Amino acid sequence: MGDLISLLREGLPESAVLTDPDVTASYANDMASFCPAGAPAVVVLPRTVEQVRHVMRTATALRVPVVPQGARTGLSGAANAVDGCVVLSLAKMDRILEIDPVERIAVVEPGVVNAVLSRAVLEHGLYYPPDPSSWEQCTIGGNIGTASGGLCCVKYGVTAEYVLGLDVVLADGRLLTTGRRTAKGVAGYDLTRLFVGSEGSLGVVVRAVLALRPAPPAQLALAAEFPSTATACEAVRRIMARGHAPSLLELMDRTTVRAVNSLTGMGLPESTEALLLAAFDTPDPRPDLAAVAEVCTAAGATEVVPADDPAESELLLHARRVALPALEALSPATMIDDVCVPRGRLAAFVDATAAIAERHGLTIGVCAHAGDGNTHPVVCFDPADEDETRRARESFDEIMALGLELGGTITGEHGVGLLKKEWLAREAGPVAMEMQRGIKAVFDPLGILNPGKVF
Amino acid sequence: MGDLISLLREGLPESAVLTDPDVTASYANDMASFCPAGAPAVVVLPRTVEQVRHVMRTATALRVPVVPQGARTGLSGAANAVDGCVVLSLAKMDRILEIDPVERIAVVEPGVVNAVLSRAVLEHGLYYPPDPSSWEQCTIGGNIGTASGGLCCVKYGVTAEYVLGLDVVLADGRLLTTGRRTAKGVAGYDLTRLFVGSEGSLGVVVRAVLALRPAPPAQLALAAEFPSTATACEAVRRIMARGHAPSLLELMDRTTVRAVNSLTGMGLPESTEALLLAAFDTPDPRPDLAAVAEVCTAAGATEVVPADDPAESELLLHARRVALPALEALSPATMIDDVCVPRGRLAAFVDATAAIAERHGLTIGVCAHAGDGNTHPVVCFDPADEDETRRARESFDEIMALGLELGGTITGEHGVGLLKKEWLAREAGPVAMEMQRGIKAVFDPLGILNPGKVF
Repeated sequence: MGDLISLLREGLPESAVLTDPDVTASYANDMASFCPAGAPAVVVLPRTVEQVRHVMRTATALRVPVVPQGARTGLSGAANAVDGCVVLSLAKMDRILEIDPVERIAVVEPGVVNAVLSRAVLEHGLYYPPDPSSWEQCTIGGNIGTASGGLCCVKYGVTAEYVLGLDVVLADGRLLTTGRRTAKGVAGYDLTRLFVGSEGSLGVVVRAVLALRPAPPAQLALAAEFPSTATACEAVRRIMARGHAPSLLELMDRTTVRAVNSLTGMGLPESTEALLLAAFDTPDPRPDLAAVAEVCTAAGATEVVPADDPAESELLLHARRVALPALEALSPATMIDDVCVPRGRLAAFVDATAAIAERHGLTIGVCAHAGDGNTHPVVCFDPADEDETRRARESFDEIMALGLELGGTITGEHGVGLLKKEWLAREAGPVAMEMQRGIKAVFDPLGILNPGKVF
Repeated sequence: MGDLISLLREGLPESAVLTDPDVTASYANDMASFCPAGAPAVVVLPRTVEQVRHVMRTATALRVPVVPQGARTGLSGAANAVDGCVVLSLAKMDRILEIDPVERIAVVEPGVVNAVLSRAVLEHGLYYPPDPSSWEQCTIGGNIGTASGGLCCVKYGVTAEYVLGLDVVLADGRLLTTGRRTAKGVAGYDLTRLFVGSEGSLGVVVRAVLALRPAPPAQLALAAEFPSTATACEAVRRIMARGHAPSLLELMDRTTVRAVNSLTGMGLPESTEALLLAAFDTPDPRPDLAAVAEVCTAAGATEVVPADDPAESELLLHARRVALPALEALSPATMIDDVCVPRGRLAAFVDATAAIAERHGLTIGVCAHAGDGNTHPVVCFDPADEDETRRARESFDEIMALGLELGGTITGEHGVGLLKKEWLAREAGPVAMEMQRGIKAVFDPLGILNPGKVF
């Protein structure tokens, strides 16, 4: 251990190597519940690629595990420390190196905060779509590691679709450059995409070339109240079937609506069973909004309220953005699920989730990126109550089983981490697991990179 | 050999095993120039997944190389036979299994022709964007293998962005399922994308889940004539910098324009040095077209001609679609390059390519997906003339070197195959090559899948 610290210090400034156990302990966890975390031996905060390479060379020489971290806002335990590890925080590598409106790319270090990048590119008339709920805290490196999504995905897709190329420090300290700066490129296997969503288990991303889009007009939204989540989901089905391309299509159930009101006092309609938010960011969103309003009414909406202007739309969007924190505030603890099902099965999923909640006597609030079929059932419980805690974990698992049964996936955008690694094998099957383990061994033959995660 | 054929016949119908040397020889090549092709031992045309598995189990048992093939319209030699191989044609597995407007997916077998799928989904109001020039012949399986692009990419991206999940028969005959049917999903490493562009070297795609989009309105185009390719490229740079999102932005140089006229008699303006085509498929494309017309004029266009209606736009688009065959018709043989450079370097690239043509005393026509920086310089030569042939090959290589020097890639959408495998190492570097070889060994430890391609 003394060896580890002194070797690390040979290539890192004094201030970049943290060893005080109180301090290092504060880097042990991301935001997932129920995920064990070990005690790091040391936390390093490199500022340069060369420093990251030094960390990985040292870790390889001593066979010490390394856990890469962004802002630790992840929800699957992927960034949790393991005992005796080096926590490799990329938070200080936070420079935007380049924004190019002609190439429509940004080149960034991994510690750049999502919202900081989004605002910086907007000044050039550009748009970086991926917008996880934690966008004011989470980093691009973390977004790449977990393949994050957000509200924008129904129209603009997920993080993976915006990563053109990467610089990655491998487990042994070698530098790998993948991908390209150009709009297209197919030279060799797609190593770039392999790193997206690999949760720091294949290498340490130290630089990313990101694709940008022209900034769209401000979106205009409507809110529709439904007498049941099933009717709201039916509206989603019809909206998508009719070829609309909303920039946002979000569902909040009654529990979520009330939680948001209780956190923000914003006065959403509490009489509703389900609130659907739809928005369009086309030059003239009114025809689409009118058509969607009609679809909602036909599907059973009791009231449809269009926003008067982009500012009012932003307020509705804010309600959705705070939904997870609002649900978290309902009980001493929560588990946030992340099941994505085919859109056509959304109603079945939501109804069955309500039945699971009832059977276990629990509150489970559901908010969802409904247009993607990506749901976030939030299981509320009190960890001091052993039986309730057991029922919460059972519900959480039953929700994943339900998702698989309906043709979905155990994780739409939060990743596998520790939380779902038992479940990955069920979804992927033995052949895919074998191939994934084979790939892991190619990039990290000693198994020092984020061990125990994903698999 | 007798062993191979009789073992293959145990799991394949009589008509699916072709051994007549005249017939098998006709499966030896794709459409690339200068790529050696061996003599296949046998061509198999399976119709079911089980038959493909039988082929791969047999090949593994006998250690016989297998070359997967679609329509053999590829331009890199990736589908060329090697001596004594099994050519595994997926052309007979051509069923569209599902088109779902709610999930916006199609599930297809690999032998479905691109244009057949495009027309089928359009009947459901849906759009499958990737549109390689060969779309009336090429298959979805081939498109996946080579990660094909097309004219649509400047707005809608390439094949890779439309592949959600795959069924793949591995080298040893096991069946691997990757990805998902849902809009989002991040469970484990992205094996799906690893297969896209892997040119049949990692496994045999037998089923694909493809993402679809709502069909956009018919596009409206304009043509702009420029006094030089450099001024046309400058217009491209400005159009993209100003945040326009054209559905098509294509460049044809004078050589290409004349070749198209000579093939089709369609009377494009031969006095122009470069013709730029731009189109928009928004509900009202006129404001964008007017703005682009202005940009073109300011950049030096001598004439800007807007199409009067979608039919006239289609005619312009057709001119671009036949550009490659038209250039091919100019000389006894051609080599088609596929260099993609940053948009801002397009003018430098086109000028330097003209200088290469002049230095070697050759005709090199350039057509380009200009909005992507993806160029197709077509080197014309007579293979009967040894010296000209040598100069053609030298030019071809110099164009790739130029692309790399300008920060581009040796292949934007045609792939590596045999044609560019010496060049892949130059672009990717030794670390990436080692990782790619490692991945190859995980999926195909005996090296029987399309040996000698890519690396």
